[in-house]
Amino acid sequence: MNEHKILQPTTIIIFGATGDLAKRKLFPAFYNLYIDGRMPKGFNIVALGRAENTDEHFRNYIKENLENFSRKKVTSEDWAGFQAHITYFRHQLDQENSYQELSQKLQDFDKIYGMRANRLFYLSIGPNFITTISNHIKNSSLASDPQKDRIIIEKPFGHNKQSAIELNSLLAETFEEEQIYRIDHYLGKETVQNILAFRFGNSIFEPLWKHKYIESVQITVAEEVGVETRGSFYEQTGALKDMIQNHLLQILCMVAMEPPASLESGEIRDRKVDVLKSIRRIPADQVDHYAVRGQYGKGVINGVDVKGYRQEDGIAPDSNTETFVAAKFYLDNERWKDVPFYVRTGKKMKEKHSYITIQFKPLPHSTFSYTPHLLSANRLIINIQPMMDIRLQFMTKKPGLSLVLQPVEMIFDYFACQEDTPEAYETLLLDALLGDLTLFMRSDQVEEAWDVVTTIQESWENNKDIFFPNYEAGSWGPKDSFALVERQGHSWV
Amino acid sequence: MNEHKILQPTTIIIFGATGDLAKRKLFPAFYNLYIDGRMPKGFNIVALGRAENTDEHFRNYIKENLENFSRKKVTSEDWAGFQAHITYFRHQLDQENSYQELSQKLQDFDKIYGMRANRLFYLSIGPNFITTISNHIKNSSLASDPQKDRIIIEKPFGHNKQSAIELNSLLAETFEEEQIYRIDHYLGKETVQNILAFRFGNSIFEPLWKHKYIESVQITVAEEVGVETRGSFYEQTGALKDMIQNHLLQILCMVAMEPPASLESGEIRDRKVDVLKSIRRIPADQVDHYAVRGQYGKGVINGVDVKGYRQEDGIAPDSNTETFVAAKFYLDNERWKDVPFYVRTGKKMKEKHSYITIQFKPLPHSTFSYTPHLLSANRLIINIQPMMDIRLQFMTKKPGLSLVLQPVEMIFDYFACQEDTPEAYETLLLDALLGDLTLFMRSDQVEEAWDVVTTIQESWENNKDIFFPNYEAGSWGPKDSFALVERQGHSWV
Repeated sequence: MNEHKILQPTTIIIFGATGDLAKRKLFPAFYNLYIDGRMPKGFNIVALGRAENTDEHFRNYIKENLENFSRKKVTSEDWAGFQAHITYFRHQLDQENSYQELSQKLQDFDKIYGMRANRLFYLSIGPNFITTISNHIKNSSLASDPQKDRIIIEKPFGHNKQSAIELNSLLAETFEEEQIYRIDHYLGKETVQNILAFRFGNSIFEPLWKHKYIESVQITVAEEVGVETRGSFYEQTGALKDMIQNHLLQILCMVAMEPPASLESGEIRDRKVDVLKSIRRIPADQVDHYAVRGQYGKGVINGVDVKGYRQEDGIAPDSNTETFVAAKFYLDNERWKDVPFYVRTGKKMKEKHSYITIQFKPLPHSTFSYTPHLLSANRLIINIQPMMDIRLQFMTKKPGLSLVLQPVEMIFDYFACQEDTPEAYETLLLDALLGDLTLFMRSDQVEEAWDVVTTIQESWENNKDIFFPNYEAGSWGPKDSFALVERQGHSWV
Repeated sequence: MNEHKILQPTTIIIFGATGDLAKRKLFPAFYNLYIDGRMPKGFNIVALGRAENTDEHFRNYIKENLENFSRKKVTSEDWAGFQAHITYFRHQLDQENSYQELSQKLQDFDKIYGMRANRLFYLSIGPNFITTISNHIKNSSLASDPQKDRIIIEKPFGHNKQSAIELNSLLAETFEEEQIYRIDHYLGKETVQNILAFRFGNSIFEPLWKHKYIESVQITVAEEVGVETRGSFYEQTGALKDMIQNHLLQILCMVAMEPPASLESGEIRDRKVDVLKSIRRIPADQVDHYAVRGQYGKGVINGVDVKGYRQEDGIAPDSNTETFVAAKFYLDNERWKDVPFYVRTGKKMKEKHSYITIQFKPLPHSTFSYTPHLLSANRLIINIQPMMDIRLQFMTKKPGLSLVLQPVEMIFDYFACQEDTPEAYETLLLDALLGDLTLFMRSDQVEEAWDVVTTIQESWENNKDIFFPNYEAGSWGPKDSFALVERQGHSWV
């Protein structure tokens, strides 16, 4: 979406530059963009941290991490070029004078560029610091040019609909909506971006993409990992807020959206909001019918005994935080009438596997009536990760002397001939540098997505009286998740 | 189509048992069916030939040929079992007493079976002997039981519409229509049979299978071989009669037919005849606009110099017989309004390749408007031989930082996991033994197919004034074949 735009000189200011995300994702992404020649001609990365540090020392720390986390090899030549763009800046989040000093620093860079450069603020910090930083940026006029200055904000964006609205209006005091890049890294994944290309770059799928031919849609984001070092954060969050409200609903939007007239970011974001608006809200007294929560107990993954959630670091021994959610949504529009959209996500599942299944309806009339038990309905599977392929299941004649059918798969392996693909953060950071908002969340998208899960969220917060753990680590989640789909004669596939 | 039927004891009588077809195809097919346990419990093959011969000598001749042409290995144990079913019978096609002796022979077998066995007559002889044999079978009451007796007739079935009608009415004096198996071995091919399974065993293709979504259909049967030892036969035939009237029109029927209500042979043959009837007849004065003929001159295939048609054995040095045909047909029905069906076949082409291309229409509106030149329309390719696969060409996002599309292929290789598949003749002979007529031509199918090509045939017979040769051996045919499709903005793919 950014083929023809030109990159302006940019100063990138990373709040939380000594944190985990910066180390694992942000610096590797900038480094890889740099090697690919996709960074602006003039750019500087100002790394903000609380501690005293020297440029040299911080650069060495980044270099070591690049060696672990960069997609491309770190050669001494490339590094020498890249490291000169990194400056460490000791910064106190809550002190006005620290922002004044930062402002001076940015003006110094502008002098070297010979122009007022673009400024890209990356808030790689906990959500409770957003207000403070935003206010200080406003007070010190750091982001004074709405054409040039942008802010990237990580999830979680609020913790419910009301807090998201408040956060949006707070940010609106400092930034225009077009300056705000609410990131959902799932949308930067090649296989997720490809949903648009697949649906709207081909003439043969769109005619089938409707309730007349589709029986159900399933979206699964299964993780093999648990909460790792994020225990105390996760205790406050849970799978509904951490995954369903953002990643899974966003994928649902891409599967369900109407064809956009163009690839303009406003147009695409409009079509996605349409989907969120059309999702039938689950009545407060029917949440159990539409949504299932789970929490893993101990179990076995890949032959290794693993702990239950309540035994993990930073987790209360009687925690009722959910690590698994399955839910069923309906879209009240013409295209998707009566088609259930099943979504599920969980930690410590049997395997890491994110995928979308489009389950087509069975044949209206089977010519092959004598082998009905052998006729499976068509199915399209879009694998997001770790497999990255598209599979179409269909029936063919089983080779042999009789006309008997068998299900087979037609496979397109997305990366069979291309191993070296950009990471999601590379795509998204480049888009932010270019000013392309398409893959980022607009305020109304975030608020609508919260609205969709509100009744589930409130029901679960008000009713902690649930028997947890209710699924074993290394399984596919609680029994109720299977019952949710089986009630309608479906099954997770 | 024959899963649940039981095989009755059968005596198979092969006219022309010392010929090429019997040697290469018929005996190997019966032998392979025998090994697969698919021959009737009681069966005998009576091999008819003009010359004096012994059973033993003939059996040895068959064994030698099996070693060259059988799909399955010829082991001494299997052969010992099979050979006992072969009897050589010296026979004079035109002598009544020879049929009386044959009748006695068949009755002798019946005594051994302990019942009147089924009789399957296979006419593996030139078309000009059909009348003689049919009359003698009638006069000697060889095929007196319409429930049990069947006759298989090879192509060409007549040499134009009138002669086909005459032949049908001649056969009708001896046989009921349900006893007559007009064979088109193309219809026994796994990949051709699979067209039915693919179209009607899946719910997702039928909605797309219509003029609204399909731009054109192409059927190519390209041969690398020339006329080999069949020169004198081919001189009287040509590609139109040898290939288009039967194989290509039959494949066209399978691509274009309406969904049959069932797999009953009558139903499927009805739906195929519907297609033939709907093909718009080419007006006599517009043949040149719809059909192209060609004849190969010398050229190079796989780096080897090869002769032109007129230099082949048995060919007149000024022959005007066509070795290539391309034609365009329209079907006057709701489903296929204005969709051209391009068919082409030729000898001494660049490579052996039979395939069907369903070319879908371009997107009605391209969301990806900034790269229109990169958007190719979807295409489904059904490879019949030697490749046996199904390929769906569609667009995906090209991996990388920009949303650029690229065409890719999703492939299902029909035989990736199954090398040992039956030959067309095995399928068809088993169907004939079982009494399943589905894959054979009914009289009205043959007559309609002749009717479709009548104006082309007459125009070419009446106008021998064409500049031959007009394509090089090892090419894809004459220039006019390309012009035929390019006139409409299409191209052979």
